[in-house]
Amino acid sequence: MAFELLQFIPPDFTLPALANAPDARMEPAPKDGVAPEGFHAMSIFPEYFKVNGEWLLAEESRMDCVPVYGDEKIHVIEFRNLKAGDKVICGRTERGEEGILVHAGGFAEENREEETFAFRQGHSRESSFSRDYDELYELLRYEKEHGRILWVLGPAFAFDYDARNAFAKIIRAGYAHAVLAGNALAAHDLEGAYLKTALGQNIYTQRHQPNGHYNHLDTINRVRQDGSIKSFIEKEQISDGIIYSCEQCGVPFVLAGSIRDDGPLPEVIADVYRAQDAMREQVRGATTVICMATMLHSIAVGNMTPSYRVLQDGTVRKIYFYCVDISEFMVNKLTDRGSLSSRGIVTNAQDFIVNIANGLGL
Amino acid sequence: MAFELLQFIPPDFTLPALANAPDARMEPAPKDGVAPEGFHAMSIFPEYFKVNGEWLLAEESRMDCVPVYGDEKIHVIEFRNLKAGDKVICGRTERGEEGILVHAGGFAEENREEETFAFRQGHSRESSFSRDYDELYELLRYEKEHGRILWVLGPAFAFDYDARNAFAKIIRAGYAHAVLAGNALAAHDLEGAYLKTALGQNIYTQRHQPNGHYNHLDTINRVRQDGSIKSFIEKEQISDGIIYSCEQCGVPFVLAGSIRDDGPLPEVIADVYRAQDAMREQVRGATTVICMATMLHSIAVGNMTPSYRVLQDGTVRKIYFYCVDISEFMVNKLTDRGSLSSRGIVTNAQDFIVNIANGLGL
Amino acid sequence: MAFELLQFIPPDFTLPALANAPDARMEPAPKDGVAPEGFHAMSIFPEYFKVNGEWLLAEESRMDCVPVYGDEKIHVIEFRNLKAGDKVICGRTERGEEGILVHAGGFAEENREEETFAFRQGHSRESSFSRDYDELYELLRYEKEHGRILWVLGPAFAFDYDARNAFAKIIRAGYAHAVLAGNALAAHDLEGAYLKTALGQNIYTQRHQPNGHYNHLDTINRVRQDGSIKSFIEKEQISDGIIYSCEQCGVPFVLAGSIRDDGPLPEVIADVYRAQDAMREQVRGATTVICMATMLHSIAVGNMTPSYRVLQDGTVRKIYFYCVDISEFMVNKLTDRGSLSSRGIVTNAQDFIVNIANGLGL
Amino acid sequence: MAFELLQFIPPDFTLPALANAPDARMEPAPKDGVAPEGFHAMSIFPEYFKVNGEWLLAEESRMDCVPVYGDEKIHVIEFRNLKAGDKVICGRTERGEEGILVHAGGFAEENREEETFAFRQGHSRESSFSRDYDELYELLRYEKEHGRILWVLGPAFAFDYDARNAFAKIIRAGYAHAVLAGNALAAHDLEGAYLKTALGQNIYTQRHQPNGHYNHLDTINRVRQDGSIKSFIEKEQISDGIIYSCEQCGVPFVLAGSIRDDGPLPEVIADVYRAQDAMREQVRGATTVICMATMLHSIAVGNMTPSYRVLQDGTVRKIYFYCVDISEFMVNKLTDRGSLSSRGIVTNAQDFIVNIANGLGL
Repeated sequence: MAFELLQFIPPDFTLPALANAPDARMEPAPKDGVAPEGFHAMSIFPEYFKVNGEWLLAEESRMDCVPVYGDEKIHVIEFRNLKAGDKVICGRTERGEEGILVHAGGFAEENREEETFAFRQGHSRESSFSRDYDELYELLRYEKEHGRILWVLGPAFAFDYDARNAFAKIIRAGYAHAVLAGNALAAHDLEGAYLKTALGQNIYTQRHQPNGHYNHLDTINRVRQDGSIKSFIEKEQISDGIIYSCEQCGVPFVLAGSIRDDGPLPEVIADVYRAQDAMREQVRGATTVICMATMLHSIAVGNMTPSYRVLQDGTVRKIYFYCVDISEFMVNKLTDRGSLSSRGIVTNAQDFIVNIANGLGL
Repeated sequence: MAFELLQFIPPDFTLPALANAPDARMEPAPKDGVAPEGFHAMSIFPEYFKVNGEWLLAEESRMDCVPVYGDEKIHVIEFRNLKAGDKVICGRTERGEEGILVHAGGFAEENREEETFAFRQGHSRESSFSRDYDELYELLRYEKEHGRILWVLGPAFAFDYDARNAFAKIIRAGYAHAVLAGNALAAHDLEGAYLKTALGQNIYTQRHQPNGHYNHLDTINRVRQDGSIKSFIEKEQISDGIIYSCEQCGVPFVLAGSIRDDGPLPEVIADVYRAQDAMREQVRGATTVICMATMLHSIAVGNMTPSYRVLQDGTVRKIYFYCVDISEFMVNKLTDRGSLSSRGIVTNAQDFIVNIANGLGL
Repeated sequence: MAFELLQFIPPDFTLPALANAPDARMEPAPKDGVAPEGFHAMSIFPEYFKVNGEWLLAEESRMDCVPVYGDEKIHVIEFRNLKAGDKVICGRTERGEEGILVHAGGFAEENREEETFAFRQGHSRESSFSRDYDELYELLRYEKEHGRILWVLGPAFAFDYDARNAFAKIIRAGYAHAVLAGNALAAHDLEGAYLKTALGQNIYTQRHQPNGHYNHLDTINRVRQDGSIKSFIEKEQISDGIIYSCEQCGVPFVLAGSIRDDGPLPEVIADVYRAQDAMREQVRGATTVICMATMLHSIAVGNMTPSYRVLQDGTVRKIYFYCVDISEFMVNKLTDRGSLSSRGIVTNAQDFIVNIANGLGL
Repeated sequence: MAFELLQFIPPDFTLPALANAPDARMEPAPKDGVAPEGFHAMSIFPEYFKVNGEWLLAEESRMDCVPVYGDEKIHVIEFRNLKAGDKVICGRTERGEEGILVHAGGFAEENREEETFAFRQGHSRESSFSRDYDELYELLRYEKEHGRILWVLGPAFAFDYDARNAFAKIIRAGYAHAVLAGNALAAHDLEGAYLKTALGQNIYTQRHQPNGHYNHLDTINRVRQDGSIKSFIEKEQISDGIIYSCEQCGVPFVLAGSIRDDGPLPEVIADVYRAQDAMREQVRGATTVICMATMLHSIAVGNMTPSYRVLQDGTVRKIYFYCVDISEFMVNKLTDRGSLSSRGIVTNAQDFIVNIANGLGL
């Protein structure tokens, strides 16, 4: 059964509550990085703001950020990026009372009864994921042609020989449009490519190499010496792995810095808020987001991913958001967002990605 | 690379410490179910006892049980199964001092350095399991021809459509020689076959059936009405699933009772010590044991599985013991037994079994 | 703020749907241990059955068991305990249509909004439990005088010196009216009392005793030799611990057998269904149930604990059910029962019980 | 039993292997941020380097960083902080062969047998922690007078009313000399003080406040408006909580930025490597480090904490490192460092801190 995009049902603005709604109130930001009192904060749902009698959809939303009007559009801005004087929309009602409409039910024709239940139950190790896998294969095939698939990878994801290979295949087959990760993931993956080890153990046999604990430091130091990952790949004749495949296929990756980093690799963004900006840049285009085996990055990306995307032709479509983790705590934290498009899979990400590659016939 | 059995190196009984060792001391059990003071308790390793100047190997061992001499053999008996007067071997030394030799290093030619490290580290969600999978495929192919593979299944294992199908294929392809489980696993599996649901949800779509919470009770009640699982399969024309495949292929299964049972199904053994006996009966023949997603049954089987098997021709070989669970706590509890033949895989058992079926080409 | 029992609001049987409801249909059990088709199965809520024009409350309910009419009362019977000819009530509607009323909202005056939310959210390591602790202290003080507190203990609960002492104090102070556990808990606790070790390590210093791995076997064997726990306590002059405190204070304990048992101790009930009966006997009187650090026993007790109790004077009151475990999976599995009286606390049971003893001023 | 510091046994430099060892080899860093090939990387143990015939101890070490000679001392420098031309010590042997000595056994008089075992076993929910708690109480009393206690807090630590109060007491009683955390912990704690909620729920009753999901944003925005946490505390008359207590008692806190941050608060350090530097500044003085309920910060601090501290008078003493987390995975990851001074406690950090406050008599 091939994947079909759900139709989006826009609000009926002729309803009296909306037709008669006042314009949304705007207040200037009192200083850089500060919102006026009573600011409105965004949800993950499509939100509309009445400006000069017209309802404007915030096209690129982000939870817990503020709507700012400018250039006849609604921009969704992080607090830290506000400029003094920005016209921030204020009001904390959601049904038009103050010219603000949160439209949570736009993809309502999906089978609500069933989905609602699945949502309510949470996911556990005992949930059945067969259908989720099958749907995901269909979704990925669809997105390869029509969307953008964003993968978010935890630090240990590259430790497993099969998982690393499976994901490299996924990249090369066109199922990855961007990768978000951190210094550790990249360093481990490059160590695997450069010295064939993961933290000093042979990446397949797990046999310890003599002085192998130096390997990840030697790798990072060499990349720093070479000046960039790109240059390292060339000079050291790297020919496998996740980062290599990204470079080769032109898949952008963002490496966000964290306080646990060694090194770091030259491409890592030290300022976490600049890193957020770079990540959001990738999220802005994404239609499916799959987070694997990382709490830090998954929460960060979850925070910046709305439930919908406005395509270039104006179509509003769902964003699919998956969180794959071995811990129910993590999966339920990420997917308990009130959105039907959030799915959690409780398993080891290594097996997950091997299954995905198999399921896609790679 | 095909699987090769490690050679067993028996003790060198000509060494002075062993050649000059006294006979093992025996004391009669003072009453039924009670061992004499100073009783020896078995480990998981091959153990030899000097009787009338000859070293006898306990051929079918079980940890924490006692060695009893009779019929010129060493029998390993549970406390509860001791009879008054049984000749229990006493002594708590291990190197011959009292005629008792615990031979822990018999499979020493394996790569010790590497394995020892793996053992010391424990396993976690971040361990690489690629090689473990590959080795397991080889092992299973070998055991299909030359050994006996015992599978131990947790209660929720049959909830997942793909996992249930994968395991049924494994049975039908000859990779399962016995199955140990409980009432819940069998009831869930039979509900899947009879009513196509798992706890009332469609087993594939997860859609709730009206009054579906009755389904598992209706299934159990029907089996009880029909008198046996065998009869239920016939009368209700069951044609898929784990239990069905076992019945069809003549694979014995033991269903042990527990205090959490509904019903129970007629085949469930209510007395847990009789259940232990029935389980050990299957373990006695097993050369590979794979426990999936169950704490109760895994610990029970782990307790009764030694690290070696004496084949009919007298060959001593390793028993391979795997524990597959999503929790590091569980996996490390089970595999931290000082035995090199114990392996843990930290993942969701659903994905594990799907991977195994794929890896075996099923 | 002292604890106050919520008032129970019985159904309004004058409502047309109930007043005009037909009598409940009864069918004879077709044979021992088998219910007639269409049997009704109980929930955890108060349920009423119309018999001869009168609504009868099932006074001692048990989930997933069947209502049987006899002696002018509704008995709730396990499938395995049905006798051929028992008058089993049939029907699977819940609002009177077939003379069956499931009365889920009887304790409605509690703050629904707040509680409902807490229920929906599930519990995690990040939930705040301060208020739960305070409420529990009040509840325990109330129950000490007016109710019965049933504690369910996992196998490792006695490993910790402080936890073992704290729970012994709780028993001696009158906050425990019955204890449910298994062979392992009792064996570990008695080893602590007899040899001052837990699995061979000094129970406080954790220092290994020479040959300490024999200690739990020596303990069990000695109890078996002495004939009973009671006799062991006398002969070996045991003077501390959980089981000792139970014996001394006349607090009944039920030890249910499981397939993981060594020994077992003489009091352990080998037949799990007889064990269920003995456990339910204790549950019948309980008004608060606290399960700690056990999946097997918690699920078993959860299955047999309804949400209400009918006191001797006919008052219907809530039963409070707590599940304390370090795993969200376990806690949510147990407390996700649709009942407002279910509470989960995600923590190590050792710290929990030390907190409870402190909070009660012991 | 009062706490006593273990005596440090320095290496015996008169042993031939050390007396005859060559001087350590130094190579200039080839460019900023890059170490020369063959660089030596530090462990957590005391390490000595032979320079001009004398053995110099690296006084402030950090794992996986490089030793640089300058000003007649050994400085331990992060890769990113290396300057071109820095004299980096090279060599990857550890027993003097290249003038490098890793002195792992300096605190050897502690009971090795026992400790070693504890180390090997790992910690689990079933470990006994009674003695660890008692030792920790003694340690904290000692450190209050003679050392520096560094606390590392996870983001959700301030959600629990009791835990927040307990930790505030610990600060006010002088048991905290520095606090490391992130934006979320501070924002949650300040929300609790400002609006009496945690993520919009009353921090004690858990009752949802109307529009409570705005509370953490309103708090952050207000702090940003006020310009600093200090100014916020004054202007908004904050009078309770963790951050307030730190400010009041002059306990420094470092808030490290992360990609999951909202806001952020003005004091949060956006550049993670500058944040590392600020954290290490606090670690340099610490003699006991306690990490609670955070993977990110615990790993970061674990990476920068050596096993020893050189006091002002030249005494070498142990650093005690505790990791408290509900997940065995996390605890074992952090404490499996080959150092006897690492301890893990598997529990909910809320209960842990309440226990600690009780145990200290606060």
